[in-house]
Parts: sequence; C-alpha cells; structure tokens
Amino acid sequence: MTELESFAVELSREAARAALPFFRGDFAQEDKGGPGAFDPVTEADRAAEAAVRRLIAARYPEHGVIGEEYGEDRPDAERVWVLDPIDGTRAFIAGLPLWTTLVALRREGAPVIGAVGQPYLGEVFLGGPSGARLLKDGAETPLRTRVCPDLAQALIATTDPEIFVGADRAAWDRLRGAARLARLGCDAYAYAMVAAGRIDLVAESELKVWDWSALKPVVEAAGGRFTDWRGEAPHAGDGRVLAVGDPRLTAQALPLLAAAVAA
Amino acid sequence: MTELESFAVELSREAARAALPFFRGDFAQEDKGGPGAFDPVTEADRAAEAAVRRLIAARYPEHGVIGEEYGEDRPDAERVWVLDPIDGTRAFIAGLPLWTTLVALRREGAPVIGAVGQPYLGEVFLGGPSGARLLKDGAETPLRTRVCPDLAQALIATTDPEIFVGADRAAWDRLRGAARLARLGCDAYAYAMVAAGRIDLVAESELKVWDWSALKPVVEAAGGRFTDWRGEAPHAGDGRVLAVGDPRLTAQALPLLAAAVAA
Repeated sequence: MTELESFAVELSREAARAALPFFRGDFAQEDKGGPGAFDPVTEADRAAEAAVRRLIAARYPEHGVIGEEYGEDRPDAERVWVLDPIDGTRAFIAGLPLWTTLVALRREGAPVIGAVGQPYLGEVFLGGPSGARLLKDGAETPLRTRVCPDLAQALIATTDPEIFVGADRAAWDRLRGAARLARLGCDAYAYAMVAAGRIDLVAESELKVWDWSALKPVVEAAGGRFTDWRGEAPHAGDGRVLAVGDPRLTAQALPLLAAAVAA
Repeated sequence: MTELESFAVELSREAARAALPFFRGDFAQEDKGGPGAFDPVTEADRAAEAAVRRLIAARYPEHGVIGEEYGEDRPDAERVWVLDPIDGTRAFIAGLPLWTTLVALRREGAPVIGAVGQPYLGEVFLGGPSGARLLKDGAETPLRTRVCPDLAQALIATTDPEIFVGADRAAWDRLRGAARLARLGCDAYAYAMVAAGRIDLVAESELKVWDWSALKPVVEAAGGRFTDWRGEAPHAGDGRVLAVGDPRLTAQALPLLAAAVAA
C-alpha cells in the first residue's frame, strides 16, 4: 500500500469514527417535522468532513480539498481530496447499514485513489495504484470483479429508478429489460459490490463529483470500467456514470443509454 | 424472555451459522449461466432450513413446521414453526448484508413469536409476548416504533416497485406520492427498521406465508400494526401486507390501497 493509500484509509476511519455515533442514535422519537428540527445526517456529515479536513491540513497542507459540506480549498492543487462523508442519506436515516463514507484523491483532475467505507460493518473498500482490497477486522482481502461477458446474464443495480430524470429513466428501463436481475437501494455500496465481484453493472445519473470520485479507482483497480454514458471518463458537469465489472459490458450497455445522452 | 422466545433466537442463530459461510463465498468467478450451475442461495437455504428442522424435531417433536425449502410437517399442530432461512435472495446474491433468516412461531394459526436475523451483522430482531428487542454482540436493546401520525411525514419502503402486479403498482405509486420519502431494496429488513423506529411504513404484495409470519410479531411487539391491505390480519392466500410504526398510519394508507384490493 502506498503512503497516500494508507492515508486514504486513515481518513476513511476518521470519518467513520465521527459519523457512526449518529447512526441509529437516540433520536428515534424526535419529531422531524418542524423547522429547526434535529437533523442527524447533516450533523454527522459535518462532523465527519470537519474531522477529515483537519487531518489533511495537518499532514498535507499543500493538498486541495473539495467536500460536500464545506466547499473548496485549493481546488487547483496538483493533489485534491474529494469528500462525501455520508453518501446514502436515505439509508442512514432509515437505519440501513448501506450508507458510506467516500474519500477520493484526485491527481491532475483524475481520481487515482478511492476509499469506500461502511462504518457499521467496519469495512473499507480501497482502490489505487497498488490494487483493490477490502479491509475489515484487521484483515485484507483482494477485490476482483467477476467475469460476465453478456448483459443478459448480468445482475445490475441503481439506487432508485425515480431519481432518473426524463430520458434517463427510459434508458434505465431498457437496461433493466436487457439484464438478468436488478437490485435497488444500494447507493455507493453497489459499486463496492462491483469491485467485489457480486454485482455486474451499476448505472446512475444526477451524481455530484464527490458521489463518484471515490468509486472509480475502486472499480477500476478491481478490474472493472468506470465511465460516463458516452463511454468516456466522467466529469463534474454531467453526473451520469456507468460502472461494470467485466469491461465487455460497457459496449453492450452504451447503446441502451445513448438516447438519453443525445436528448 | 419466554422459553419459546429463547428457542426462536436459538433457531435464528442456528440458521445463521448454516447460511453465513455461503455469503460472499469463493464462488465469485463461477459462471452462473449454464444449467446445473452452482447456486449458493439454494444451497445455503437448504442447509439452514435442515439445521433448524433438526433442532425443532429434537426439542419439540410435537410442533409442526412449514418451510420454504422442505414443505410442511404437521401443519395443523397447535404450534407450528414457519421458516424462511434466507429472505432477500437478490440481496444475498448481490453481496448486500440485508438478507435475513426468518423464524416464526404460529399458535392456532396466528404468528405469536418472530425472529428476524441478519447473520453478517450478528443481529436478531425478536418480537413476542415479552416484548420486542434487538440482540447483538451479547447486548439487548428494546425496540420501539416511532411516533409519526401523518403519512405526509413518513419514510416508507418497499423492496422493488416492479414486483407489484397490476393495480398493486398504482397503489404503491399513490402511497409514495403521499409520503415524505421512500426507500427501496430492503426485503424483510425494512420491517425490522419499522420496529426499531427508523422506517414508518412498509407495503408489499406477492409475499408468501414464510415471508411475513416472523415480521408481524416483531412489528406489533414494538408498538406498530401489521395488516393486509384491508386492515385485517394477513392470511396465507393473499400476500399483501402493510406494516406501520405508528398505528394511526394504517387508516391513512388503506384508502390509497383500496382500489388494488377491489380490483
């Protein structure tokens, strides 16, 4: 593991320590209706991002940071950390252990290291120059996508079909119709399962740069491909991503998505 | 905890021991395409149900058993165990720790004890005559649904809107339109989150008797209501269930579901 990969894991663990106490915390009976009501997700998000930013500033003050909660610091630095302390807000609120902490390191604009952590499970899925692995309970397991050369055999996932806007929804429906099985409700955890060889394809849109930056290195270091819906490297202005475990699936999925991109 | 509640937990743990080794097992690279291909879910299901049936036969040979894999033994006995060793097949296949082992005890036709276990998390959600609790890591936490008197404020869940057939799908869409937020992809785990005060309402159809029997005692012992889409006790021939944390939600949800029941 490189020094920066180790540091990404350290950041992921730090975010986990800050966020986990809020998960299924003692606010179950709170009335969330009124203005100014306690919002555990926002509090957990802020606490985790602040903690991670402190560590980065102390160790690598020259690095940039882009985070969902506290904005941009030196976004044009050679190395920039991109943070989403809690991805999967609905999962977090609903008590489901599928929300994640996302930490990415971008170099010259492209993410090169990603850490996807699930604090309640004690898992960190790490991808970077030295490969892809799952860290859990002090053990390391290599991550490897699985062979699935045919979309008709694929298990595919998206978080919620209702999130797709306009032609993107029809694109998802075509994809679902062409695949063997679909699974919903996973947020970033679905991409970790692509890296782990359990899910073959994930398609989503409306993602922000902090939603996907950590996912690309994890999926690619495990043997998969991570593109936008044109088959190119995703970029901040678009938000459509396509992750596949078997690189041959990209070419089969893109024609089904093309109409949405052209729309 | 009553003797039979303790035994339900013992059965849940036994099912977990049998099923967990198959989860994320070393079959990631298998080609699942061909006939006769290794099917880890079926194997895990069978192993878990067989293990549970052995324990029941040894301890309570006069009790009946109904299981998804091995059928019915003495289904007309006064006390009948109803088993689904792996609920959430897609979650299991996809590597997601939201599948559950379901153990219910039915007395004179009505489920009175339910245990919903998630083996990877080491959790058992238990409901019965002595209350509702979460057992994890040797600790017990009481379960209590949360206050949510208004459907417009509710967080609702279903596993997959595509599973609804015909008018049931329109009923779900109406429900989703009336609620604050929806979450997909949870299977039986969603009902455990109702009991834990994290989700307010779950509506599903096409459920078998082993899919819902364990859920009713857990939700009700935690303070919720568990009915069919007419507001009556669910029965084996229907398969539509409505679980709410705050009993006042039942009356608000039923009119939105009524057209489906009449259809």
